[in-house]
Amino acid sequence: MRAVVCQEGALEVRDVPAPRPARGQLVLDVLACGICGSDLHARHHADAAADAAQAAGYDDLMRPGDAVVLGHEFCGEVEGGGRRWRGPVVAMPMVRAAGGVHLTGLTTHAPGAYAEQVLVQESLTFAVPNGLAPDAAALTEPTAVALHAVDRGQVARGRPAIVVGCGPVGLGVVGVLKARGVRTVVASDPSPARRALARALGADVVVDPGEESPFDAAVGAGARFLDAQQLFGLAVGSMEKLRAVPLLPWQHVFRLAEAAGAGPQGPVVFECVGVPGILDTLITSAPLATRVVVVGVCMADDVIKPSIAINKEVDLRFVLGYTPAEFRAALHLLAEGEIDANVLVSGRVGLAGVEEAFAALADPETHAKVLVDPSAPGQLVRT
Amino acid sequence: MRAVVCQEGALEVRDVPAPRPARGQLVLDVLACGICGSDLHARHHADAAADAAQAAGYDDLMRPGDAVVLGHEFCGEVEGGGRRWRGPVVAMPMVRAAGGVHLTGLTTHAPGAYAEQVLVQESLTFAVPNGLAPDAAALTEPTAVALHAVDRGQVARGRPAIVVGCGPVGLGVVGVLKARGVRTVVASDPSPARRALARALGADVVVDPGEESPFDAAVGAGARFLDAQQLFGLAVGSMEKLRAVPLLPWQHVFRLAEAAGAGPQGPVVFECVGVPGILDTLITSAPLATRVVVVGVCMADDVIKPSIAINKEVDLRFVLGYTPAEFRAALHLLAEGEIDANVLVSGRVGLAGVEEAFAALADPETHAKVLVDPSAPGQLVRT
Repeated sequence: MRAVVCQEGALEVRDVPAPRPARGQLVLDVLACGICGSDLHARHHADAAADAAQAAGYDDLMRPGDAVVLGHEFCGEVEGGGRRWRGPVVAMPMVRAAGGVHLTGLTTHAPGAYAEQVLVQESLTFAVPNGLAPDAAALTEPTAVALHAVDRGQVARGRPAIVVGCGPVGLGVVGVLKARGVRTVVASDPSPARRALARALGADVVVDPGEESPFDAAVGAGARFLDAQQLFGLAVGSMEKLRAVPLLPWQHVFRLAEAAGAGPQGPVVFECVGVPGILDTLITSAPLATRVVVVGVCMADDVIKPSIAINKEVDLRFVLGYTPAEFRAALHLLAEGEIDANVLVSGRVGLAGVEEAFAALADPETHAKVLVDPSAPGQLVRT
Repeated sequence: MRAVVCQEGALEVRDVPAPRPARGQLVLDVLACGICGSDLHARHHADAAADAAQAAGYDDLMRPGDAVVLGHEFCGEVEGGGRRWRGPVVAMPMVRAAGGVHLTGLTTHAPGAYAEQVLVQESLTFAVPNGLAPDAAALTEPTAVALHAVDRGQVARGRPAIVVGCGPVGLGVVGVLKARGVRTVVASDPSPARRALARALGADVVVDPGEESPFDAAVGAGARFLDAQQLFGLAVGSMEKLRAVPLLPWQHVFRLAEAAGAGPQGPVVFECVGVPGILDTLITSAPLATRVVVVGVCMADDVIKPSIAINKEVDLRFVLGYTPAEFRAALHLLAEGEIDANVLVSGRVGLAGVEEAFAALADPETHAKVLVDPSAPGQLVRT
């Protein structure tokens, strides 16, 4: 079958063996497969990505010399699906192979879906419900990434969320935050086109970070943050109020004190840029008690100022991936219309045009998510 | 009255005006005041500490040229206490002054307790219960710092805690963790004397980090951590198990899936060293899903590898200070014998010996917490 193979930074359509399913596995005819930022990483920074995965205990992420079929955001139909698997399906991109479990589209052991067919685990396969179109269903995987990040962010009621960087993952985070009922979502990106997409996905406020701080924008939208001097005043003031009620029993008084002394609530920031310096910029400009969910993958070493992070009680929560339950929940958010995936899909390309699509994705004004469709003609078409 | 003044890095006993209480304030005759690591910072790195506080919105932390009476970990008796304030008291070190609320012992607006007397807010003052000795009560403030750090760490049932660095704060964290019922506490410090103190405060395992990784020690003590390959196997395996039970309704199956898919639980690490490089060392050597509570104050810029933190889903939670409720809770942990403060107190010194005590604290083998007692003779005495 035909597939796009990445090797030594080159992308090339090759004829490769069709997948052969073992027990518990299925073969999908690919309908659509999204091009992901980590595919761009895999092409040009494979060693750095593989080193980081190795540090976490996964030894088989692709190296530059490996010939790997990329593609892990896919929707397809089960070959010979019969009654059990009728219509489009999606699958979490992991398969049993070579004595372990491997990441589809990111290792030689598990070829991906920039191809006519792809191998999946039946246990990780989900029927696409509600007549959701395959193009939209192909966004299940990046939506699961966004959903997991939002879960890890634990945005409390009334706390604003700020999404820094509106690439496909940042836009997915905007969509999930609004689907989850977060009231104030501020989205920040230098690109007008990306800000328009953030708006379309429900962002309440969009800012160009070159012109306005997203934290100021959150305040403009009604958020209230404390600085250290205000926090000190609150601590003393709340105790003075409590001590002015001598008739209440201490236990009760201190229950009140705990409420009063719970500390400030900063915003939850979703960092979806992933370049050196962005964490330090956020730490320096954030209000007290800001929680930063680090979704953007910065491959280089980075410098932070711990003393400022401490004085502000900043949290940095680094996130990756999702659970099977989150993958399924993402599919349902899309299928139930909670997130409009069509907003994100900007283009479609055949296998022969993948290289062209990678290049086009460098311009945020033109494209957000491009889908590879092995049945389409080669060249990139805007949708 | 006599007090130890810090200015341009020098410590000097001077005659200073006695405190004059405004409405809502009390004057304490100081019985004991602990020497804190931040006093050492204040002496030699005042500008860096003041810059970090300023970034968080507190503008008045001492600068090198300021003449400041240090000391914020104190126990005293209320001058003219009468019936309301009989016996020893402690107070949260914040006072209203100069139109704001200021940090006692760290600014010119709020002289500290390396002195015969100190000014406090009545609303932040707590009678010492249960006949707790003033020396032990003086440890309320650092114990509150430790308690706040443990609160922010949210150590889940069955999750091990690892305390890296057994200075007074790290030792306080060990004590609070055990008081809170955390089952496995591993304490790590190169100093044999500090490891012995950690043991005395209840650490289940102590390690010399030069000889053994505290993470390995936690595994030796029964902790189970997953690496990425094991996590992938768990995700697929749990879904295979669930799919093998076709008779259960989907809703129920997915409740199980969520439980199975909750992800790995790493240890909670309390970083109590505060030197450049320690965060990167922890990120690099930690298992998946490690939560690092950053208690140690590193004043220099620091380099981390975000890509490894992401692949491991590490959390960095930076912490500082405590609430009034936590301050009171710390006093009660000490007074109820949940933490034995006497273990920590290694010496006592008069005002004239504070400089000697600062020097002696550089050697972890000899001293942990030294108390300043304005009624004692000058020189440092081991207790």
